[in-house]
Amino acid sequence: MKALRFVEGRLWVSACPVPGHESDALVRVIKSGICNTDLEIARGYAGFDGTLGHEFVGIVEKAAGSPELIGKRVVGEINVGCGQCDRCVQGDSRHCPSRTVLGIVGRDGAHAEFLQLPARNLIEVPGNVSDDAAVFVEPLAAAHGIAERANIAAETSVAVIGDGKLGLLCAFVLSLKTKDLLLIGKHSEKLAHANLNGRGIDVMKYPIPEKFDKKFDVVVEASGSESGFATALDLVRPLGTIVLKSTFHGTPTWAASRVVVDEITIVGSRCGRFTPALDLLSFGEVRVDDLISEEMRLSDGVAAMARAAQPGVLKILLSNT
Amino acid sequence: MKALRFVEGRLWVSACPVPGHESDALVRVIKSGICNTDLEIARGYAGFDGTLGHEFVGIVEKAAGSPELIGKRVVGEINVGCGQCDRCVQGDSRHCPSRTVLGIVGRDGAHAEFLQLPARNLIEVPGNVSDDAAVFVEPLAAAHGIAERANIAAETSVAVIGDGKLGLLCAFVLSLKTKDLLLIGKHSEKLAHANLNGRGIDVMKYPIPEKFDKKFDVVVEASGSESGFATALDLVRPLGTIVLKSTFHGTPTWAASRVVVDEITIVGSRCGRFTPALDLLSFGEVRVDDLISEEMRLSDGVAAMARAAQPGVLKILLSNT
Repeated sequence: MKALRFVEGRLWVSACPVPGHESDALVRVIKSGICNTDLEIARGYAGFDGTLGHEFVGIVEKAAGSPELIGKRVVGEINVGCGQCDRCVQGDSRHCPSRTVLGIVGRDGAHAEFLQLPARNLIEVPGNVSDDAAVFVEPLAAAHGIAERANIAAETSVAVIGDGKLGLLCAFVLSLKTKDLLLIGKHSEKLAHANLNGRGIDVMKYPIPEKFDKKFDVVVEASGSESGFATALDLVRPLGTIVLKSTFHGTPTWAASRVVVDEITIVGSRCGRFTPALDLLSFGEVRVDDLISEEMRLSDGVAAMARAAQPGVLKILLSNT
Repeated sequence: MKALRFVEGRLWVSACPVPGHESDALVRVIKSGICNTDLEIARGYAGFDGTLGHEFVGIVEKAAGSPELIGKRVVGEINVGCGQCDRCVQGDSRHCPSRTVLGIVGRDGAHAEFLQLPARNLIEVPGNVSDDAAVFVEPLAAAHGIAERANIAAETSVAVIGDGKLGLLCAFVLSLKTKDLLLIGKHSEKLAHANLNGRGIDVMKYPIPEKFDKKFDVVVEASGSESGFATALDLVRPLGTIVLKSTFHGTPTWAASRVVVDEITIVGSRCGRFTPALDLLSFGEVRVDDLISEEMRLSDGVAAMARAAQPGVLKILLSNT
């Protein structure tokens, strides 16, 4: 089968055997999505060697012990815990210290014709959610995960920093929870999505004007840039919360005394639950179709990664058809 | 009156008029305590010019509108809000954007014969709390404030980093809430206080041995050093909490992706409520007498500041008698 692999610093589409671990289900990938994390990995983040990709929709071809899944169209929770440690026993395989993560840690990923995940990680996609939309379930779950880490009610003022794919999804989800929302980004063409499909989300072009003095209850840092955190510190109110969403390869400096004096809370947020994200798509509460910049073929995976890294580009899908 | 002042980079004991704002109460200071924040201010942190000091016990001499306070022995909440902004109206003068803070921001402090605070900031000291102990109410309240910012129950594992005055007080308070507590510090003679007065707190000398692999639910950073935060990140478990207690003049670097991937929470914690701290002293739950390294006279304030900065020295008290 074909697979987009990153091994020893080299990125290429390789021919490799269909994976065949008996204990995992086998999924034929329909489409996968290129995430910024894929780009970061190809820059050396996380030290991963193998097939990239963790956003996908596919059809279950084999599932020993779960025959009811065979032929089903599924998405998949990307963290695979050991099943035996304290974390796993508590149902939190996301934080299992010996977990593998699809296309990120110790497990070949989704930019391939086939992938493997345990049957328990797979979730059937409702018929009214398109293949294109289903690819967004993983990042949408990550965006929705903010609500698991910070209290956001109708009257909570929220700023989202970053107008990339993740920042936009965060804004889309949060606009369902509060009407006091501001999306801040550097790219007019990306910010424009905040007002497509009837979203009506307020936006502000970075840099923030000096006279702007509003402080927010919650600031979501989704820019993936080191300066994003400094901006978040500027915008959060005393006793407010900063949610860090982006993983990036860097060590920002920060004014620690500001965090102490103003008693700010900073919460890291990585993944989220898939079921609420599927519901958002199935019930039509979030639309993602305008975030797709282009669909390319898996065999053009290297070019697709380069395209995904270009300014102004949002989601690039890889197709196996 | 005499006052220990830091003005335009110069520290000296000055003769200045007794303060006379009609709207504030006048307190004759019995004793004050030198805090690391005083030392940081004298190094340029916070840009403060004026009389230093924010830990004190004193006798109320004047209190327009609150005659019942006159003659009472008091301690005082150090933040003075404007009384009119949203924060103040909500009862949170600690975060009033135009607040003054005794001996730290825009208000002359406690290393003086007299100080002024609004009568509403003053709290009477129970008769069974000594003058020496009462000076510790402000830092003890700050230590107790951890419990306002992080859930700490009997089964919560907690590490405190830093064996200075603040780190020790944090450990003393937290030892009342959990039995799974470890105090980490660099100084054997300071760590020894963890086992005086029957405290029985486990300690570990820094650096942490490589083979030590315990991860903690909560890590309190009270070392005031930039490396303390990196150590806290090493010690906290996934989904755990780091409490930042120290204000210091620095911008540490940090592995932001660790915070995101392991979904760690970081909370800044500055002050705390005085009443619970007074209760801890009055009910004998916390003893602080062994933390006093020396009592010196206010007139020797400059030498006292130098003494407080010496290695191995804990609390230096300044006395007006």
